[in-house]
Amino acid sequence: MNDLAIAWPDIAAAQQRLAGVAHRTPVLSSRTADERTGARVFFKCENLQRMGAFKFRGAYNALARFTPEQRRAGVIAFSSGNHAQAIALAAKLLDMPSVIVMPHDSPPAKLAATRGYQAGRTDSEVVLYDRYTEDREAIGRRLAAERGMTLIPPYDHPDVMAGQGTAAAELLAETGPLDLLLVCVGGGGLIAGCAVAAAHLSPGTRVVGIEPEAGNDTQQSLARGEIVHIPTPRTIADGAQTQHSGQLTFPVIQRLVERIETVSDEQLVRTMRFFAERMKLVVEPTGCLAAAALLEGVVPARGQRVGVVVSGGNVDLARYAALLSGGPAAAG
Amino acid sequence: MNDLAIAWPDIAAAQQRLAGVAHRTPVLSSRTADERTGARVFFKCENLQRMGAFKFRGAYNALARFTPEQRRAGVIAFSSGNHAQAIALAAKLLDMPSVIVMPHDSPPAKLAATRGYQAGRTDSEVVLYDRYTEDREAIGRRLAAERGMTLIPPYDHPDVMAGQGTAAAELLAETGPLDLLLVCVGGGGLIAGCAVAAAHLSPGTRVVGIEPEAGNDTQQSLARGEIVHIPTPRTIADGAQTQHSGQLTFPVIQRLVERIETVSDEQLVRTMRFFAERMKLVVEPTGCLAAAALLEGVVPARGQRVGVVVSGGNVDLARYAALLSGGPAAAG
Repeated sequence: MNDLAIAWPDIAAAQQRLAGVAHRTPVLSSRTADERTGARVFFKCENLQRMGAFKFRGAYNALARFTPEQRRAGVIAFSSGNHAQAIALAAKLLDMPSVIVMPHDSPPAKLAATRGYQAGRTDSEVVLYDRYTEDREAIGRRLAAERGMTLIPPYDHPDVMAGQGTAAAELLAETGPLDLLLVCVGGGGLIAGCAVAAAHLSPGTRVVGIEPEAGNDTQQSLARGEIVHIPTPRTIADGAQTQHSGQLTFPVIQRLVERIETVSDEQLVRTMRFFAERMKLVVEPTGCLAAAALLEGVVPARGQRVGVVVSGGNVDLARYAALLSGGPAAAG
Repeated sequence: MNDLAIAWPDIAAAQQRLAGVAHRTPVLSSRTADERTGARVFFKCENLQRMGAFKFRGAYNALARFTPEQRRAGVIAFSSGNHAQAIALAAKLLDMPSVIVMPHDSPPAKLAATRGYQAGRTDSEVVLYDRYTEDREAIGRRLAAERGMTLIPPYDHPDVMAGQGTAAAELLAETGPLDLLLVCVGGGGLIAGCAVAAAHLSPGTRVVGIEPEAGNDTQQSLARGEIVHIPTPRTIADGAQTQHSGQLTFPVIQRLVERIETVSDEQLVRTMRFFAERMKLVVEPTGCLAAAALLEGVVPARGQRVGVVVSGGNVDLARYAALLSGGPAAAG
């Protein structure tokens, strides 16, 4: 695997950096899930991770590797989602400046959470841009150049990928070998890290990625043998609205992921209700992707030991309540 | 403590019976809760217990102590809430008949869940009664006498109390000594068991009980020095709508509980939202009692190590969604 962006030792090193900083999230089971699928299912609950999603792992791992000079100048990131909050929180914990470039129409709760992590630091800020008229990557690059800050992308970075892989490493350490591991796919950082961890800790595990039906760019890319770009997909799984895999994540997926399956928004909503009603967990739509594939029978698993990564729980309460109570599963 | 209904060895024995049967539920923390209260807070998440509440502990412990003869005849219980489901599930696991006496207007979800645990057993049933014209205790006693079944009450029973105490025993084993332990109070089974566990494992812990403002019968009883009966209270905390403490639970509370505090329905709803938004947990109103007292400043705890028992998560999804989205906190 020497030609891939990361290998097992990178994940082992990330585990050391995250020890005592990230939560070792619980692995929960549900007899209802087991009965419905005929499998033995282990849910790795990253919705219970710090700031509510696995993204904290990769962000902290990347920032913890900064040189003293990089730390002084700080970090820059652009994201409207969990990566923004993850970088802001990791920067706060590591005492460095952060600039987060977010769309001006980001959900107020996410803006507030990101600014909350930056509170009390005059060297940190949220920079808003107009997503219809401005190019966030250009803004990010300009600010990075002007201020000497290091840009950390949401998935296509070895330290981010290695950090995310610690989720599967913890899961497998707790469950022992698994037959199957289901992981959601946006840009591919989580599944790439998890696949490398599984290949080392449980080489017999088949890793299957789950994308939203409307945003199956990685499935298309695997079929085509090269990275396919798609328009921003319309799906309630806002964490998987990526247009393409990464240059670093895709080769890992090609090598170590068996296949990609997709689920519909309706299946995500039913799964969100299952989590609330039967497991008493708040899970965001993207966090339901892997579980939906299993519970809805998209990936049959009878008689198998199955790991499911529940990637996050950050969903606006009003929107969550509407989805629970049967409101329209309109694309967000 | 020889004159109390239970002592530490009863809880230790219950732990043995529950090992591998009940979940050892996770103890979660929240930096937001710590910052808001100035305390170090440990949440014992019994909403993640089997069937969604701590009640499974006491029910299973009681049924596991049945003689072979009692097992053959089976168990009877009357409850519209978590005790019904707990007894039905424990009876299923221990392969004995169960009869659950429930009001005819119980929530359909609770009826379905109880019947689900009885499925496939022709010797088990739900018996419905009219709560306005019939006396459930008389029905229960008659059925118990006719069929030779053993009646297990929801709280006023030594094996039930000892079973509930295992929740605090697990919490303290994980956290070490605590300064303060907050537990909700309905009939007093949970707090009595937890207080006995704390007195043994962490003698310096002050145990404080939390009741709904509208249903402070135990607070009144402590002031009066005898069990006070009140009309069925109007509160969204449906698991704490008891009219009086038990003959066995009250003496334990008198001896081992420092005091009782109360919280309002509005405080419960805010706490329910806190759990969903910040901790990604679905918690029923009754399950929010102890946390509400802490988070709303009713029980100050700055600088202290505090245990909070989150008692359950069984709430109808439509009702839950309405409460989350700011609907009226009308009494259920």
